[in-house]
Amino acid sequence: MITIRKANVDDCPLILEFIKGLAEFEKLSHLVVTDVKTLEQSLFGERQAAEVVLAFLDQRPVGFAVFFHNFSTFLGRPGVYLEDLFVKPEQRGQGIGLELLKHIARIALERGCPRFEWAVLDWNEDAIRFYKRLGAEPQSEWTTYRLSGDALKKLAQS
Amino acid sequence: MITIRKANVDDCPLILEFIKGLAEFEKLSHLVVTDVKTLEQSLFGERQAAEVVLAFLDQRPVGFAVFFHNFSTFLGRPGVYLEDLFVKPEQRGQGIGLELLKHIARIALERGCPRFEWAVLDWNEDAIRFYKRLGAEPQSEWTTYRLSGDALKKLAQS
Repeated sequence: MITIRKANVDDCPLILEFIKGLAEFEKLSHLVVTDVKTLEQSLFGERQAAEVVLAFLDQRPVGFAVFFHNFSTFLGRPGVYLEDLFVKPEQRGQGIGLELLKHIARIALERGCPRFEWAVLDWNEDAIRFYKRLGAEPQSEWTTYRLSGDALKKLAQS
Repeated sequence: MITIRKANVDDCPLILEFIKGLAEFEKLSHLVVTDVKTLEQSLFGERQAAEVVLAFLDQRPVGFAVFFHNFSTFLGRPGVYLEDLFVKPEQRGQGIGLELLKHIARIALERGCPRFEWAVLDWNEDAIRFYKRLGAEPQSEWTTYRLSGDALKKLAQS
C-alpha cells in the first residue's frame, strides 16, 4: 500500500538520502553539497524554502517530492514548482511517482494554483513520455540561465 | 539618474502596465489574464507570492523586475528566481536592465542565495548575449514541463 505524508524535521537524514539517490540517477552526484543541518534550517527553520512529502510502500520510505511556490505575472497568481521527484530504483513501476504527482496536483488545486511545473533532463525519455501522457506541455522555447559563484558576486558588487 | 525601489500595493496599476508591456514584447499578450485586484492579493496580501522592484529614470517609472525564492535540493538552500524583467522599449540601452539585475544580485547575496536564475525565450538573442556577458550559464539540458487547466484537474482528481 502506498501512503504519502508531509515530511518533518526528523526526516532530514532520509531526505538527504533521497537527494543523493536522485543526484546519482541524474549523474550529478558531484553537485550535491548539502547536509542534514542545512536541510533542517532551509526546510524547517524560520523561513521554509520548500515543502517535502514522503512516499511509503507498506510503511517503508521509497520516495519523495520537493516543491515550492513560483509565480506567474501573466496569471498574477502563484503556481506549484516541483523541484525534485524521486522513487528508489528498485521500487519503480508501482505507481509511486504517480501518487506523489497526484498528491502535489491536489495541493496545487486546493491552494488555487493554476499551474504545476517541473524541469526534466532532456535524456530522461521515460520520464518525458510519462509526463506527456499526463498532459504536461514542454516549454521548449524557454532556457533557464544561472548566475552563481564569482559571476554572481561580480554583478552584485559592480 | 536611475533609482530602484521596492514596489508597494499602490504600484499595482503600474506593475500591470509593465506586465502587459513585457507580454507584448514576448508576443504573448493573449496569455495575460491578471488584473490590479489579483496582483494586490498575490503580491501584497496575506501570503506574498513574489517581490517587485521598480526602476525610475529621473523619477519616471521605466521598468520593473519580479522575483521569488526557488530552492535547490543539491545545495539545500533557496535561490533567487527572476520571473520578469522589463524596461520600456523607448528607454533601453541606458543600463536600466543592468541596474535591476545588480539590485537583485545584491539581494541574492544578502540573503545567502548561491544562485540567481531566470528563463529566456530562445529567439531573444540580444538578451541572451547580455546574460552570457554577465557570466550566466544556460541550463540547456533541462526543459520545463507545465500541467494546467483540465490536465491538472484530471491528475488531481484521479
